[in-house]
Amino acid sequence: MSEGTACKFCGIAATAGYLVFEDDISFAFLDHRPLFIGHTLLVPREHYETLNDLPAALLAPFFGNVQMLARAVEKATEAEGTFVAINNRVSQSVPHLHVHIVPRRKKDGLRGFFWPRIAHPAEEDMRQAQAAIRRAIVGGSNSRKDR
Amino acid sequence: MSEGTACKFCGIAATAGYLVFEDDISFAFLDHRPLFIGHTLLVPREHYETLNDLPAALLAPFFGNVQMLARAVEKATEAEGTFVAINNRVSQSVPHLHVHIVPRRKKDGLRGFFWPRIAHPAEEDMRQAQAAIRRAIVGGSNSRKDR
Repeated sequence: MSEGTACKFCGIAATAGYLVFEDDISFAFLDHRPLFIGHTLLVPREHYETLNDLPAALLAPFFGNVQMLARAVEKATEAEGTFVAINNRVSQSVPHLHVHIVPRRKKDGLRGFFWPRIAHPAEEDMRQAQAAIRRAIVGGSNSRKDR
Repeated sequence: MSEGTACKFCGIAATAGYLVFEDDISFAFLDHRPLFIGHTLLVPREHYETLNDLPAALLAPFFGNVQMLARAVEKATEAEGTFVAINNRVSQSVPHLHVHIVPRRKKDGLRGFFWPRIAHPAEEDMRQAQAAIRRAIVGGSNSRKDR
């Protein structure tokens, strides 16, 4: 599925300015426009556009690396916690799966994604969403051919 | 590691108002204060405080469920994409690992976590962070006993 030179993240490992980690399936480097210093991006070497597209065989090693980096970034920056996030398509700057691992401290000014929230969603809306998600699960949204 | 009734999310599956999914290791329900209708939380049944604490054996099944729900939520809400995020300690409302799966549309008003970013981080700061993260990885931040 490699898109070669068409994708900004394909093959970047060799040239990334601030590489912090690489293994057979992925590599990680510092975001060049970080939320906070230490903001790291983990990218699979193969070109998968979103989390939806990551093969099942890569789930454990890839998210094992996410976890390892969450620990390492927190420790290295002496942070109090981390923010781990994936934008799938919307707000996704490069259409090659990447996981943000961001060091966090209390009162660090990052409002995060907690605003605005719907304080009192209508029960009817919630019931409809619940039913639709249940149907999407039963209907096999988990199978690749269904996508 | 269960904290029983002390934890808001331990044992919630049986009573969650808007359960959308459950299996042997996890369950998912609609956030009661959603960013957008369809905003889902996936929670491991066992009590792990953060992503850092999730056992290696659960990485594949748990993140397989995250992936499955990202597909299902997107399909069910006819969204254009999703936002998948984990707050570890800072901004974490309940100290029991939970993954946010949020439907996204372009111009949906969610600024996400893209502000404020550091447009031109000092090279010295970046080099120091890079070196510190590399040391934290080599130093075994990936081993549980090291935490």
